[in-house]
Amino acid sequence: MPSYTAPIKDIQYVLHDLLNISELQTSGYSELDRDTTAAIFSEAGKVAEQVLAPLNLSGDEQGCKLENGVVTTPDGFKEAFEIVKEGEWCALDCDPEYGGQGMPYLVGSIANEIFSSANMAFSMYQGLTHGAYSAIHAHGTDQQKQTFLPNMVSCNWTGTMNLTEPHCGTDLGLLRTKAEPQGDDIYKISGQKIFISAGDHDMSENVIHLVLAKIPGGPDGVKGISLFIVPKFVVNEDGSLGPRNGVSVGKIEEKMGIHGNATCVMNFDDATGYLLGTAHKGMRAMFTMMNEARNGVAVQGLSQAVPAYQAALEYAKDRLQGRDVTGAKNPDGPADPLIVHPDIRRMLMDQKSFIEGARALVCWAATMIDQAHRDNDSDADALVSLLTPVLKGFLTEQGFQMTVQAQQIFGGHGYIEETGVSQYVRDARIAMIYEGANGVQALDLVGRKIGLNGGKTIMGFFDLVKTFIKENEGNEALNDTFLKPLKAASKDMQAAAMYFMQSGIKSPNNALSGATDFMMLFGHVSLAFMWAQMAKVSSNALENGSSDAAFHETKLATGRYYMARQLPATCMHLSRIQSGANTVMELDQAQF
Amino acid sequence: MPSYTAPIKDIQYVLHDLLNISELQTSGYSELDRDTTAAIFSEAGKVAEQVLAPLNLSGDEQGCKLENGVVTTPDGFKEAFEIVKEGEWCALDCDPEYGGQGMPYLVGSIANEIFSSANMAFSMYQGLTHGAYSAIHAHGTDQQKQTFLPNMVSCNWTGTMNLTEPHCGTDLGLLRTKAEPQGDDIYKISGQKIFISAGDHDMSENVIHLVLAKIPGGPDGVKGISLFIVPKFVVNEDGSLGPRNGVSVGKIEEKMGIHGNATCVMNFDDATGYLLGTAHKGMRAMFTMMNEARNGVAVQGLSQAVPAYQAALEYAKDRLQGRDVTGAKNPDGPADPLIVHPDIRRMLMDQKSFIEGARALVCWAATMIDQAHRDNDSDADALVSLLTPVLKGFLTEQGFQMTVQAQQIFGGHGYIEETGVSQYVRDARIAMIYEGANGVQALDLVGRKIGLNGGKTIMGFFDLVKTFIKENEGNEALNDTFLKPLKAASKDMQAAAMYFMQSGIKSPNNALSGATDFMMLFGHVSLAFMWAQMAKVSSNALENGSSDAAFHETKLATGRYYMARQLPATCMHLSRIQSGANTVMELDQAQF
Repeated sequence: MPSYTAPIKDIQYVLHDLLNISELQTSGYSELDRDTTAAIFSEAGKVAEQVLAPLNLSGDEQGCKLENGVVTTPDGFKEAFEIVKEGEWCALDCDPEYGGQGMPYLVGSIANEIFSSANMAFSMYQGLTHGAYSAIHAHGTDQQKQTFLPNMVSCNWTGTMNLTEPHCGTDLGLLRTKAEPQGDDIYKISGQKIFISAGDHDMSENVIHLVLAKIPGGPDGVKGISLFIVPKFVVNEDGSLGPRNGVSVGKIEEKMGIHGNATCVMNFDDATGYLLGTAHKGMRAMFTMMNEARNGVAVQGLSQAVPAYQAALEYAKDRLQGRDVTGAKNPDGPADPLIVHPDIRRMLMDQKSFIEGARALVCWAATMIDQAHRDNDSDADALVSLLTPVLKGFLTEQGFQMTVQAQQIFGGHGYIEETGVSQYVRDARIAMIYEGANGVQALDLVGRKIGLNGGKTIMGFFDLVKTFIKENEGNEALNDTFLKPLKAASKDMQAAAMYFMQSGIKSPNNALSGATDFMMLFGHVSLAFMWAQMAKVSSNALENGSSDAAFHETKLATGRYYMARQLPATCMHLSRIQSGANTVMELDQAQF
Repeated sequence: MPSYTAPIKDIQYVLHDLLNISELQTSGYSELDRDTTAAIFSEAGKVAEQVLAPLNLSGDEQGCKLENGVVTTPDGFKEAFEIVKEGEWCALDCDPEYGGQGMPYLVGSIANEIFSSANMAFSMYQGLTHGAYSAIHAHGTDQQKQTFLPNMVSCNWTGTMNLTEPHCGTDLGLLRTKAEPQGDDIYKISGQKIFISAGDHDMSENVIHLVLAKIPGGPDGVKGISLFIVPKFVVNEDGSLGPRNGVSVGKIEEKMGIHGNATCVMNFDDATGYLLGTAHKGMRAMFTMMNEARNGVAVQGLSQAVPAYQAALEYAKDRLQGRDVTGAKNPDGPADPLIVHPDIRRMLMDQKSFIEGARALVCWAATMIDQAHRDNDSDADALVSLLTPVLKGFLTEQGFQMTVQAQQIFGGHGYIEETGVSQYVRDARIAMIYEGANGVQALDLVGRKIGLNGGKTIMGFFDLVKTFIKENEGNEALNDTFLKPLKAASKDMQAAAMYFMQSGIKSPNNALSGATDFMMLFGHVSLAFMWAQMAKVSSNALENGSSDAAFHETKLATGRYYMARQLPATCMHLSRIQSGANTVMELDQAQF
């Protein structure tokens, strides 16, 4: 069974060396000095390493069970959830008014990486509660907030998001769940929802479902969708739990992965629901949480790559197989460790350079979410809106591919479930699908985000890159290996954006056919931008005689790998994009 | 549950329009006219569609069981195996002297695609038997052949390959299984083998294990390995089954996929074994079957992409979600089918253009295997030796990625096991690992195959491409869309080969660090070469007023997609290769 070690040192590097968070003007950041974040994440790491990670493989094997309408989580989950609750890990970045710790989203985002790396299926119970918390916090009445939030902040009650129905996922305009008004913002909800993560379980006293439904007589399509709070147990006026609501679990899905999380078919049968926000404006209420939720899934993509890489690295160092062609490295042993072989190195470096670049990107985006939410910074809000589909799409796609690479290093042993790497592959796969499939992210990016603020936001991104390159061109340590490739890749991206503007006007399909490639191209440029900045930080540290030279040299070498070996993907994506829609759309449906 | 339809028309196109097999001079090919191959593959298709495909999902769910030392296959497997045996499908390309039908390898290879598409786990019982048959056929004594082959050709007895041990897979020089001589080429075999596909089961009377082991006192490492025939039941002189041999199943592995195939830990405890071939030359005996076995695994990579694509296509046509941005295509329905969306098209076209190109490449390689084996054509043997690691590595990598794409089209439904696409992903994954992990294929390609015959073989491949381009440059239908991109990609490949020659001499790691990228680059050029030839065939057919114009137009459009949207990967691979070993090998082991 693979173990997991929380990457505290790398996290601290991103927070304090790269982003200098305690010097940012963002509200609440001044308290986040090195010691504070070290203390928080070391504690989170302990819970992750000692409580959650040991339940990952067994949770996958056992899965969740539905018997007589009652959902049971795998052995140990309940006790682990108590520990997480006691540590107030659910409350990290929640509002102190409802018992939260009031920390920035950034802190919650990193804790999410750590917990999710240790046990993705488990951490989803908490993650979905946070999503439901945010929705009620943003759109609820005072009374709703008082009724639901304190118990959700503590995770005494958990939350869910009920969007999908059997016949509609992406296209929610088609949904059929009905909400019949009973007066006083009370409704009777009826319908079936599917794929409801953490839909029911035995770890909390109540489950607070957020449900999208249509009030009869409202507008057609997505404009007639409202959002409702539907608790598993109705909450009495004094806050105690009342009778069971008309909500039941139809079945638990058999899935490819995340077996420890109960993915439920939820049946609503005249269930009592409370309107959240404005009638018919439910989609808008959902969308205000979108950046947060999608960045959360992006973190999941990263999160599975981390323990998969750790396991593969350990295996590559231990497993003796073959000899280094340039001379034996373990001459007294029967063979050299796998890690001497260039193709094994290639896979390890792919993973390492992705993980560290991705973490930097995730944290940078989280700082912008904080700037937007805590300080109403509209530029930060726009930039993170632009980057969100890139983070969600690119990091989950690449994160999955990295788990596949890690599995490959294990050879046949990677295909056997007891090694644990297969689970990372299977768990990581879902992140490419839910919270908007990656194709939908690409569509959002090309169809809406590129044109945000009349294109000013994406121009702002290009300017950031350009300014960084200009400011550092004199730095020889950076120029050839970091700045030049970044400049070339950024040019590819600008050429792609230009192509969309010019040819997309003639035919939107020209833009849409290249949407996924553009998302990937943008992701590579973003990671390269992160690496160039980290290279600057580390080369400065070395110049200033850092006492941790080996660490900074490793950062530089890892960054150089990314620039030389991953970034060249931009030429492929640009070439595909510029080939336009013709070959993509040419066939009639019948010709397939 | 997804259904499967054998792609007979596309197979016939490759065999007769592209490769003109009945006009080739290869022994046995003249009999393979259109009607004959149509009859064979339609019958194979019926068995695959009606008998094997319906057992694929249930076989995955049930898996194999080991109880009291007895292995049970999933419900229905035994009956299905009887049908396959009755149809003599195991005997297709086996030697008539032992009851085979004597057809070319090409025919067996296509049947392999069809059966494996329908049920990969099931078809492996037969596939491994064929591998063991080939080894005994090539290296056995007359008596061994008479004793074992007739029952293996009929699949009354099945076969296995026992190579891997717990501490060694790729590096077989480390193996520990012992063979103590008892005189008369009889040995007592003791040791443990793992990952033995089809290691034991309830579908045949006997299991004939081919086992690599060391005879004490022989040379160290791979030069001291011998190959043995170790039957589950000892065979009496009259051919009847004798006592149970000292072979037992230690356990069945829990795997990510191919659950219907029993992957066994095999324990040999003073088991009676018969030396196959020459003592200490077991590796050579194994290697003579390598091209065949590796091409068989390449076919598996292709084989899972096929039903995954068929399922995704059906879903994309049926599932109504969203509207075509250029105008509703299903205005009377609540939404348009998924297939109207460019990003869905992109994924479908990726799959379609891969599958059809890959099938052409597999069949072309099979014709060379036939030329080499049936007519001792050493040029064909060399070229297929060069191409084999490319087929195995590239087709299994891309085949897997295509199953992931198919799953993506299903959205959340793709992650649920009952849809069946998750199984294609999980089953396809093993093909990248076994029969030499893809990194080992890349090593074989760059370390040995490029230099085959002093580089003449790879130059011969380039000449084939060059000649084709030159001969068709006047053809305007081909020039811009097929020949120019093929020329550019082929140039990238030559530049990569040149880089290896020049810099690999200075440091072999420069070549090895780019091995996987070269394998992928070579694969893309190979598929592009296939597509260019198919484009010629189809544009000629259209010029000649083919009655099936829509079919040929579809071929051309699919080929154009490959050239515009897949082939640009060569620039990325070349760029990575030319960056050399520096960034790959820079870190000390301790720095990871």
